[in-house]
This record gives sequence, structure tokens and C-alpha cells, in this order.
Amino acid sequence: MSDQSPTERVAYRFAVHVMPKSGILDPQGRAVEQSLPHLGVAGVRDVRVGRRVELTVEAVDEAAALAVVERLAHELLANPLIEAYRIELVAAIAAARTA
Amino acid sequence: MSDQSPTERVAYRFAVHVMPKSGILDPQGRAVEQSLPHLGVAGVRDVRVGRRVELTVEAVDEAAALAVVERLAHELLANPLIEAYRIELVAAIAAARTA
Repeated sequence: MSDQSPTERVAYRFAVHVMPKSGILDPQGRAVEQSLPHLGVAGVRDVRVGRRVELTVEAVDEAAALAVVERLAHELLANPLIEAYRIELVAAIAAARTA
Repeated sequence: MSDQSPTERVAYRFAVHVMPKSGILDPQGRAVEQSLPHLGVAGVRDVRVGRRVELTVEAVDEAAALAVVERLAHELLANPLIEAYRIELVAAIAAARTA
């Protein structure tokens, strides 16, 4: 007998990185670049500012959890017209037995 | 003779992850969580929304480049009262010989 029942769910922590696409204006990145001379910092360029969204998903396995994150990234977290996203699995953090 | 002159500089690409500290209110994370039922998504929790800042630093070596990023993260990119940051080296992307 396996000790993994069909109702055992695992919690996965993901990070979704949402960045402005190449060529898309990035006003926050520009603002950082324009602050650099005031700080006396030289040699810094190509600043891009995006979002990092961390979230925990409970699912039966990693593939099911990833499917949820993919859907959220596409429909809610990123604007596909102007932003690109990348999903990173941070950790499988716990098992939660529900039955 | 070495082919590495003192004026040879390397460009490093970093990512700075800036996240709200644990216990600090995160209204963007709450907004995402409150959208989940409307999308019919269950099993997602602990959503935190922060920033990902990518930047390129030219310096004589990785330690010098990292020192610049540390200073920017502390003084410009994060608010140390309410945010924590982590620096990730993405790539040493090119050598730029200046002499």
C-alpha cells in the first residue's frame, strides 16, 4: 500500500516574474536611471522594473499547481500585450492531507 | 603578461527582488486574492506582490558590481522599513575593454 492517497495535496510556492517586454516603455525603469546621477552612481544601465508575485498553490502534484499559476499569470498577473512573465518554482513547502 | 588590464570592465546583469516584509500589509496581494473567486480559482493563498528590478552594472569585477547594486537596493529601490530585498546575479554578460 502506498502512503500517498489520492486526496493528499502538496503546497507549492511559486514566484511569477512579470517584466515589461523589450521595446515597451518602462517609466519606472527610466525614473531609476534618472536618479543615478543624483546618487553619484555611474556604470549602471538598462534598468527595467517589473513585478514579482509570490503565491502558494495547493494541488495534487506539481503539474496541476503549475497549471493554476500559468492561468493566473496569463489572465490576472500580466498584461500579455506589453508584459512577459516567467514562472519559478520556489519550493514544495508542505504536504496537507485532506482525508 | 596577463591579457586582463586594470581597465577591463565586465558587465553584470542583476535582478533585485523587493518584497513587502512579513506582517506588512500588501494591498496588491490582497487584490489578487480577492480576484481568485471571480476566476473560479481555489487553493491559492499567501499572495505577495513585490517588484523585480533588473539592471546592468559595468565594473572591474563581480564584487565591485555587487557593491553598487547593494547600495542602490538599500538607498533607492527598497524602503527598508517595510520591504526586504534580495539580489540575484543573472549573468556576467560581456567584457568591455575601455583601454
